[in-house]
Amino acid sequence: MVYNIYMDYAEKSLAKHKLLKGKISVSLRDTPDTKEKLSIYYTPGVAAVSTYVAEHPDETRDYTWLNNNVAVISDGSAVLGLGNIGPYGALPVMEGKSMLFKHFAGIDAVPIVLNVHTADEIVSAVKAIAPSFGGINLEDIAAPICFEVEERLIADLDIPVMHDDQHGTAIVVLAGLINAAKVTGRKLQDCHVVVVGAGAAGTAIIKLLHLYANPNIVAVDSVGIISRSRDNLHPEKKKLHKYTNKTNLSGALEDALVNADIFIGVSQPGLLTPRLIKLMAKDPIVFAMANPIPEIMPEEANKAGVAVMATGRSDFPNQINNALAFPGIFRGALDNKVNEINDAHKIAAAEAIASLIENPTTDEIIPSVMDSRLVDVISDVIR
Amino acid sequence: MVYNIYMDYAEKSLAKHKLLKGKISVSLRDTPDTKEKLSIYYTPGVAAVSTYVAEHPDETRDYTWLNNNVAVISDGSAVLGLGNIGPYGALPVMEGKSMLFKHFAGIDAVPIVLNVHTADEIVSAVKAIAPSFGGINLEDIAAPICFEVEERLIADLDIPVMHDDQHGTAIVVLAGLINAAKVTGRKLQDCHVVVVGAGAAGTAIIKLLHLYANPNIVAVDSVGIISRSRDNLHPEKKKLHKYTNKTNLSGALEDALVNADIFIGVSQPGLLTPRLIKLMAKDPIVFAMANPIPEIMPEEANKAGVAVMATGRSDFPNQINNALAFPGIFRGALDNKVNEINDAHKIAAAEAIASLIENPTTDEIIPSVMDSRLVDVISDVIR
Repeated sequence: MVYNIYMDYAEKSLAKHKLLKGKISVSLRDTPDTKEKLSIYYTPGVAAVSTYVAEHPDETRDYTWLNNNVAVISDGSAVLGLGNIGPYGALPVMEGKSMLFKHFAGIDAVPIVLNVHTADEIVSAVKAIAPSFGGINLEDIAAPICFEVEERLIADLDIPVMHDDQHGTAIVVLAGLINAAKVTGRKLQDCHVVVVGAGAAGTAIIKLLHLYANPNIVAVDSVGIISRSRDNLHPEKKKLHKYTNKTNLSGALEDALVNADIFIGVSQPGLLTPRLIKLMAKDPIVFAMANPIPEIMPEEANKAGVAVMATGRSDFPNQINNALAFPGIFRGALDNKVNEINDAHKIAAAEAIASLIENPTTDEIIPSVMDSRLVDVISDVIR
Repeated sequence: MVYNIYMDYAEKSLAKHKLLKGKISVSLRDTPDTKEKLSIYYTPGVAAVSTYVAEHPDETRDYTWLNNNVAVISDGSAVLGLGNIGPYGALPVMEGKSMLFKHFAGIDAVPIVLNVHTADEIVSAVKAIAPSFGGINLEDIAAPICFEVEERLIADLDIPVMHDDQHGTAIVVLAGLINAAKVTGRKLQDCHVVVVGAGAAGTAIIKLLHLYANPNIVAVDSVGIISRSRDNLHPEKKKLHKYTNKTNLSGALEDALVNADIFIGVSQPGLLTPRLIKLMAKDPIVFAMANPIPEIMPEEANKAGVAVMATGRSDFPNQINNALAFPGIFRGALDNKVNEINDAHKIAAAEAIASLIENPTTDEIIPSVMDSRLVDVISDVIR
């Protein structure tokens, strides 16, 4: 039953993709159907534009589509929940994301899938093509490489670069938590938060939540609680010590969950059980975002006493979906010429999203991705 | 006076580009305005498509826009006649070329400008992004690097790769020569041909003409006739010995022109004078393709006795324009799943273009770029 909806969409999706043979096209802002127009848009006239922008590269955006385009770039190493399926496997997702960029924010997004997979190679390829785009949305690149790739590209490029699996997710989770805390009468800074999954999304959620409210956060990976006593932690996970585990807890997930106010799962289907929920504080908040099958199904969670339940799915209330954030973030960055999306932008974006729900309830802590106010309120704070 | 038309277009072009802020956009093949559609085009449904094409990468084109897209890629090292003006300078031209791809052949072309300039770096960058595209049109990359870049990419990639400055030009020049020879009652194999300019275009013209008719070709660069006695020739120019200079001529341009039937200029404005034309055979053919100012203006050439005169310009008869060829070439390659555009394709394309002029005359050896039959007749022979 849990799989039914997914399987249903699988067949429909395969059929529809085969029918359309692609979800995006290139269209023209004018039709070059006279020799006069060809001479203006192409040779000889375009030589004047090329000469001008070569001398004034910062103005290229005023004469080309740079002012409104982004690249959606993946190496296919961590596509959805499917893992390392390579660039061809990634392409339908990146084309879909480009579709969302256009539909929600009017942005001309181009899917770029990479045939290279080391941090050095990805950084080199993206830097090589960077003058073609007004912004770069990194997508579905596996941790820990994604951290180094994003960090180096932000440092080296003068256009906005954002790894959406990290920051898009973190922004929307924070938006949801702001309202979930209201619904359950909590202050985030007083909460005990357990984050399960310490990859791209988990790490970014931890950092943003720490910065926003500095609650007591305990991170858990497939081995157990990430504590200072763990041997052989990857350097990226060691960095989490700075933001987590104020009480120096160690042990398994169930040790972390004792009296926890908030469970945030970016891990795997079925990880959270009613028995584990009973270990948590009264009226707990559960964001079970494994996709497409969450860590616990909403019905089961509610029966076990969860007060606010969110998933990544569109067929349950409170969908935590990156599409709430990234269109407005890049719309704002492009329009306001913001060349680096910083932490203040991310927090402001989360607050803007949360603000659209005036009276949050158990079943409504976050707007729908269809909410037409989203792009405006978010882009307005990216400046 | 010679510059007036160019200057006129310069101002119009700058104004129009600033007004439109880009010549291309992304458009959507369907509007994802319901949760159902979002679930089909993006998560969760797209996971099924990604899984399928990851296992059947050859079928990616049937489920994504790969079947109809090409990248128009330049490093900005030889943009139009403007030289090495870098990626930003190149972008308006590549966006214009993308416009032509869409308008003439319905192909979704994406302008990609590169921030790297060595052959190794260009090859690495293009190979890294190659899974994103169904074909690659290289453009405005300086000789001699362009030769190595194209050769390596053709060898390494399984999608069509063509450097248009080389082969697009060569195809259209050959098409024009086929009909110009008819007009003047010549056979190409008996002609003495002088090609001035031994860069990307000149080299490709020489090779294709050699292959098609094996006439006596003499190549001339800025130093003089390319002969076996020249010291310090770049290896790429040394390769021309194989195709040129059957009589082992050496000297200057005027030595090459004695009794020449055909002058092909891809060099610089004003290089050809009435005095030099008088050295040529009776009723000579002159293709003066320096842009925007040709090697000799048509009026002057005609006065000096030229029988058939062609330029690269749209405001004179017989415009030798790459736009005659590349849309049909890539349309054919994409539709007929041709993964390598070979010499036979190029000759067939030239013959197809020439065939559209049933009764060639002095003023009409080549169709207009607006000729709606072009794409069909060319794409039909790329298989």
